[in-house]
Amino acid sequence: MRIARFSIDGNVAFGAVEGDKPDELVLDIIKGIPFADFELSGTKVPLSKVRLLPPVLPNKVVAFGRNYAEHARELGNEVPDAPFAFFKPSTAVIGPGDAIQYPSFTEDLQHEAELAVVIGRMCREVPRERVADVVLGYTCALDVTARDVQRREKQWARAKGFDTSCPLGPWVETDLSLQDAKDLTIQLTVNGEQRQLGRTSEMIHSIEDLVVNISEAMTLLPGDVILTGTPAGVGPLHVGDEVAVTIEGIGTLTNKVVKRG
Amino acid sequence: MRIARFSIDGNVAFGAVEGDKPDELVLDIIKGIPFADFELSGTKVPLSKVRLLPPVLPNKVVAFGRNYAEHARELGNEVPDAPFAFFKPSTAVIGPGDAIQYPSFTEDLQHEAELAVVIGRMCREVPRERVADVVLGYTCALDVTARDVQRREKQWARAKGFDTSCPLGPWVETDLSLQDAKDLTIQLTVNGEQRQLGRTSEMIHSIEDLVVNISEAMTLLPGDVILTGTPAGVGPLHVGDEVAVTIEGIGTLTNKVVKRG
Repeated sequence: MRIARFSIDGNVAFGAVEGDKPDELVLDIIKGIPFADFELSGTKVPLSKVRLLPPVLPNKVVAFGRNYAEHARELGNEVPDAPFAFFKPSTAVIGPGDAIQYPSFTEDLQHEAELAVVIGRMCREVPRERVADVVLGYTCALDVTARDVQRREKQWARAKGFDTSCPLGPWVETDLSLQDAKDLTIQLTVNGEQRQLGRTSEMIHSIEDLVVNISEAMTLLPGDVILTGTPAGVGPLHVGDEVAVTIEGIGTLTNKVVKRG
Repeated sequence: MRIARFSIDGNVAFGAVEGDKPDELVLDIIKGIPFADFELSGTKVPLSKVRLLPPVLPNKVVAFGRNYAEHARELGNEVPDAPFAFFKPSTAVIGPGDAIQYPSFTEDLQHEAELAVVIGRMCREVPRERVADVVLGYTCALDVTARDVQRREKQWARAKGFDTSCPLGPWVETDLSLQDAKDLTIQLTVNGEQRQLGRTSEMIHSIEDLVVNISEAMTLLPGDVILTGTPAGVGPLHVGDEVAVTIEGIGTLTNKVVKRG
């Protein structure tokens, strides 16, 4: 099931996305929330009539650095032995179609396409064999990065945590198994031109590794998001660019870059 | 005014702390929330009858590293030219009297006493001269750190973001001006023995610098917390230790270290 979050007439709801043709998708409104047992209401609205929101409102986004060897190398970095994580705050999260605001404090905004794991239930110290149980599903993410600030500042709160630096969407795909998620094509285009292309099978540390690693330290809450690293091909974004992340079996997340007003 | 957050009979409320003698403090329950105009209800409860909670529930805690030169040097680090920030997630926050759980993935848990700035209103790109307007008040914080993990991992999400790594309290003091806050004694004891002692006047980057720096990048929300760095004297914590942060004009935040269950 593809679970989207959307607003219509000022109300916010979750809905199950039905249909195959992009222009004919329909949302069946969910009664309740997708983090517990829920039912479809049967009330349907065309997706074209609503505004899609970030598919979840994470309490925290935990992002892992340098999880694709080729990407670590393209930035001149060593491939770390163990995973390492940083946070993006909830104020950074935007949804599909929302504008990425080019901040005033950077001159080198860059794109990093990532597979996002959406946590479905409160958990801590998750054993490897239980990881699949705590995952609600998967969505596309863009880890927008102020590369010059990242190089200058020892910790990346500003470089990777500024407003609009975490587009998520278009929806959470819950029908992919953990095994499925480990071998998906991930692609990023800027203005229709391919910039990043990789497979999630190239991850150095697996999805299980990452969930075990972070949940060893902290409680994950329903709706929390784990970003799993970006494949090679990162590069600049400019005002006016349209950037799109497509992950096999999930969909496409598209955002436009605008000048921060 | 000292604004505390507390639970009593399963309800959570804010209250204004009245009285001077530690054993005779009384809470006048606040009608509404302290981030907007509010009134005191006149309904009073002895502080000894309630459980104090973290005085705010931050959406994010932004912490600045190496903001006291002597502390940077004691860890063998350079003093950075510009401030740099990292996040502690809301799942790390605990209140006065709550237990610090010694995590299983570290063998070198350490204490860092810090002055915490509590944000009172939603803001972004705050000009230096408006910083005082966005501050609700000040409280005590402990940046509990897994020093071995911090040394090993390039980004500090696990080392400084684990559950219970961010004690805050005992309340928010709103009567300190920004000028007052820039020259307060900050002291930390472990089992009654002094370990850290400094003055907030020793900060390299001022409170204004820090708020300008972080709000240039991201929106701050009411209840968000900014940790302003720790003075020299950081050192180990062990299971069974009682650690207390006292800041002049605010009060004392006390927590005990326990084995994570």
